[in-house]
Amino acid sequence: MEVGIIGTGAMGSGIAANILKAGHSVRVWDRTPQKTSDLVKQGAKRVERPQDAFGGDAVLTMLSDDNAIRAVLIEPGVLSQAKKQAKTTVHIVSATISVEFAKELEAAHKRHGVAYVAAPVLGRPDLAAAGKLNVLAAGEQAAVDKVRPVLEAFGKTWTIGDEPHQANAMKLACNFVLAAAVEAMSEGAAFVQRHDIAPQKFIELITGTLFAAPAYKTYGPIVASHKFEPAGFPLGYALKDVRLALAAAENAGTPMPFAAILRDTLIDAVAHGAANKDLGALAEVAWRRAGLDGG
Amino acid sequence: MEVGIIGTGAMGSGIAANILKAGHSVRVWDRTPQKTSDLVKQGAKRVERPQDAFGGDAVLTMLSDDNAIRAVLIEPGVLSQAKKQAKTTVHIVSATISVEFAKELEAAHKRHGVAYVAAPVLGRPDLAAAGKLNVLAAGEQAAVDKVRPVLEAFGKTWTIGDEPHQANAMKLACNFVLAAAVEAMSEGAAFVQRHDIAPQKFIELITGTLFAAPAYKTYGPIVASHKFEPAGFPLGYALKDVRLALAAAENAGTPMPFAAILRDTLIDAVAHGAANKDLGALAEVAWRRAGLDGG
Amino acid sequence: MEVGIIGTGAMGSGIAANILKAGHSVRVWDRTPQKTSDLVKQGAKRVERPQDAFGGDAVLTMLSDDNAIRAVLIEPGVLSQAKKQAKTTVHIVSATISVEFAKELEAAHKRHGVAYVAAPVLGRPDLAAAGKLNVLAAGEQAAVDKVRPVLEAFGKTWTIGDEPHQANAMKLACNFVLAAAVEAMSEGAAFVQRHDIAPQKFIELITGTLFAAPAYKTYGPIVASHKFEPAGFPLGYALKDVRLALAAAENAGTPMPFAAILRDTLIDAVAHGAANKDLGALAEVAWRRAGLDGG
Amino acid sequence: MEVGIIGTGAMGSGIAANILKAGHSVRVWDRTPQKTSDLVKQGAKRVERPQDAFGGDAVLTMLSDDNAIRAVLIEPGVLSQAKKQAKTTVHIVSATISVEFAKELEAAHKRHGVAYVAAPVLGRPDLAAAGKLNVLAAGEQAAVDKVRPVLEAFGKTWTIGDEPHQANAMKLACNFVLAAAVEAMSEGAAFVQRHDIAPQKFIELITGTLFAAPAYKTYGPIVASHKFEPAGFPLGYALKDVRLALAAAENAGTPMPFAAILRDTLIDAVAHGAANKDLGALAEVAWRRAGLDGG
Repeated sequence: MEVGIIGTGAMGSGIAANILKAGHSVRVWDRTPQKTSDLVKQGAKRVERPQDAFGGDAVLTMLSDDNAIRAVLIEPGVLSQAKKQAKTTVHIVSATISVEFAKELEAAHKRHGVAYVAAPVLGRPDLAAAGKLNVLAAGEQAAVDKVRPVLEAFGKTWTIGDEPHQANAMKLACNFVLAAAVEAMSEGAAFVQRHDIAPQKFIELITGTLFAAPAYKTYGPIVASHKFEPAGFPLGYALKDVRLALAAAENAGTPMPFAAILRDTLIDAVAHGAANKDLGALAEVAWRRAGLDGG
Repeated sequence: MEVGIIGTGAMGSGIAANILKAGHSVRVWDRTPQKTSDLVKQGAKRVERPQDAFGGDAVLTMLSDDNAIRAVLIEPGVLSQAKKQAKTTVHIVSATISVEFAKELEAAHKRHGVAYVAAPVLGRPDLAAAGKLNVLAAGEQAAVDKVRPVLEAFGKTWTIGDEPHQANAMKLACNFVLAAAVEAMSEGAAFVQRHDIAPQKFIELITGTLFAAPAYKTYGPIVASHKFEPAGFPLGYALKDVRLALAAAENAGTPMPFAAILRDTLIDAVAHGAANKDLGALAEVAWRRAGLDGG
Repeated sequence: MEVGIIGTGAMGSGIAANILKAGHSVRVWDRTPQKTSDLVKQGAKRVERPQDAFGGDAVLTMLSDDNAIRAVLIEPGVLSQAKKQAKTTVHIVSATISVEFAKELEAAHKRHGVAYVAAPVLGRPDLAAAGKLNVLAAGEQAAVDKVRPVLEAFGKTWTIGDEPHQANAMKLACNFVLAAAVEAMSEGAAFVQRHDIAPQKFIELITGTLFAAPAYKTYGPIVASHKFEPAGFPLGYALKDVRLALAAAENAGTPMPFAAILRDTLIDAVAHGAANKDLGALAEVAWRRAGLDGG
Repeated sequence: MEVGIIGTGAMGSGIAANILKAGHSVRVWDRTPQKTSDLVKQGAKRVERPQDAFGGDAVLTMLSDDNAIRAVLIEPGVLSQAKKQAKTTVHIVSATISVEFAKELEAAHKRHGVAYVAAPVLGRPDLAAAGKLNVLAAGEQAAVDKVRPVLEAFGKTWTIGDEPHQANAMKLACNFVLAAAVEAMSEGAAFVQRHDIAPQKFIELITGTLFAAPAYKTYGPIVASHKFEPAGFPLGYALKDVRLALAAAENAGTPMPFAAILRDTLIDAVAHGAANKDLGALAEVAWRRAGLDGG
């Protein structure tokens, strides 16, 4: 298939590379053209303007947030002009965006006659590079089916629903559960530390029994060891995700007390300079609250 | 070895049966003598008084809480008289008790010259019956080593530390993390439900990816389906555990905001009649808060 | 002085009436022209377009929120064109807006050379009508001094700082403390109710002793009696204010755990249909959480 | 009347002095006999044993907590023996105790045939000395009426209900609302500080308008100035009161999310050495969470 990629940062370039490997033809665009160089070496074609990425079978947007998409695709009229040159292109948006903006995008695509699939992903850049992301796809069945070969080039696809914004809501729910697991481990670790038990022992016990799962095995040792750098998943991004979850929850009439606690704990962490540390640095806040060294 | 068992309720009888199966000689006592009948058929000897369970190599107490242990062993003087007839008996306490009472027990055993090992367990009655509990052992090395064959008869043993109360603290930390996982799933499930996504789909996704662990696979479907009976782990017990964790946390100077939320959510559930429903009934509270049917 | 008023809803019309009474000349504009009729009878002059309200000594904007101000003054270019016809007009914004938008307005006024004073108010429509609001004024000293006679026509003026957005932050802090007082009374009232004490007795006691203040005397009886209608201060507005406070707090790096609880409790209330009830309907949530009748 | 006083610490001695001033005959007992010296100079009679304080018309107990009352009156059998020598003495308990223990005391007094009135007080030692406490009285009408002249010697009496423990519940509700007010001011003050507004300005504004009440006027300036010593109401005592409120709330089936937050915030403060600082030191926690100097 002919696939365009808009945004070739850490995530987008991994995704693009795997689409190339799967044998598709790929056009790439990024605000910073150098970021496309490696992909060009791998066979991608660099285009000058975001609208040039449209026109094939699919175009996948992986920009950082609502504002970036507004600035690149909405305000300059790329989306509103897309239909002319891109009659049958399906637009896939994989960025983590707010549910409210996702609904706005749904409406805009409908208005402009462009097929639209939301496909946010679970996983960090290393999984993107390995083609092992989990892809949460939502949209009209036909559109999802059409782009399935593209999505399966970079991960396992889970079909979430008929309305694209449902995939965005699901993504936020997943990241909320993840952040909650890290906070729970942090509180538990501070608690055992205060009883003179090594946090490592606590993490070994839970990951060896009821919590033998990637989320706990990845973040548990970070919590226990207080080695927060380099950041696999930066804490500042987790704050963004929790903020988006809370905004969607408010619009949907859903109190989320754990998310509210997470928000404050993440703000506390960021106010103490931890925005670029790993999400596991929630442990630093737990330590600080308890007056422990290392907090 | 000669082993006494004090308390043969759902957990204690499973433990006793496995100790018997491992070839040890077992004496049993329970406030309600009928509860020992099955064990007697399996070869155990019923004794008349709790003190008669002492005297062998080890005696394991599995009573419901601090008060039960006070009433059975402390106030009638069983512990203070134990040394005479039980010079070398190691007392194993497997009940889930408060850390404060655990420290009191530590001091009392020292005062009365009785060897003491704390060995609270992770797992429900079905795992007790299957001999597959996780046993958190703490106490003086020699005493723990001596009773290890007894402990290994009913589960996998994890050595936590030299001071018995550390095992009790660890147990509370584990159950806290478990309750937190169920609350997080409940909030997430209500959130996706409010976005017209089936909670089952959310649970499948997380247990198929980052959260492929027993805690999530056991409670997730309960949360999603709202089938809270029969209760594997009754919600009222979880409230007890969280209460004990908070009390220990306060004594140890450790704020635990997630535990504070859990406490209120569990109280809400109990105030609405869910004490004997499964812990997964936290979902009922999340539904109620969001004004959803089924809350 | 010559004063324009943009927005003559419940608050704006009370303010305008008092400015008239104080002897100033008043021009009025509202999206719904009928809303200006009473003021016209009292001597105000109705103008056709918002920009026509500019041009005198001061123009006061009292619209409902960020979006209304954007739609009426920013997007149609009213502000950017104001300087021509309104060289010396000071623009007073009394609406409750987000701190982020307040900063945006600050920058826009500077860019367009228009003097700008933020003057959000404390008090409901009845106090606006009585000219007894508390006015939180911030901006350049000279501008604040110039419009002081206007502000003092409808309330007591408190000078907050040199930067207009500071007044908006202060307003949010005040409304947060108010909502917190109502939540605290609600929780306390449910607690005493559960001990078979009439909530009225509790409210009488606290408002007769340590809490003999308008906030408690106004909302306490509403909490105790569960008479939530008519709404003095609608609960949905309080949710807006708490949301704005939390957003500003996040930007400023300030965790606010009480505000986080308030947000969830208000969402719970709104999810149960209480958006147009009085803020005191927080008691309904407290009752519901405790499984009490009336919750 | 003939009145005994058990416990002449800071509060008890102020109370006793005012009972003396009102013309009653007073016997005093304290674990530390020197603490009664001033009262003896004022005309009180020192007795050797707590039971000697019984026997007159009333005896008032002002000990520090549940345990102190157990140790002084219950375990040594003072209460169980009281009827003989004290047929018509009404026992007034003014200590701040748990609701659970209050119910236990109710039952014990009934069992032993001793009339019992709970009369916990609102106010610090300075108000006790001035005879200006607020006294929350509960118990059988006749008993309350009989001791009313004693109660009115040291404060204003509020009748709460027929069951003594109701007065204790009411006291906890009042102190909860107080601590909540201090936390709300602390969060608000940190918020305005982060917007470069002096916290003093915030406190002046709220205490000059909606919050012109003693609670805010007393604690607001402490919060704003960060002068936490000497402590009017020590933070460690507030933690005790919140803990008692939460325990009673749990037994009564009442979630109290603000109280849960308060508990954690107070534990955080105590973990950082603030147990003997004023309750206003909650501001220190708010400052610390926000990464502000002084936190």
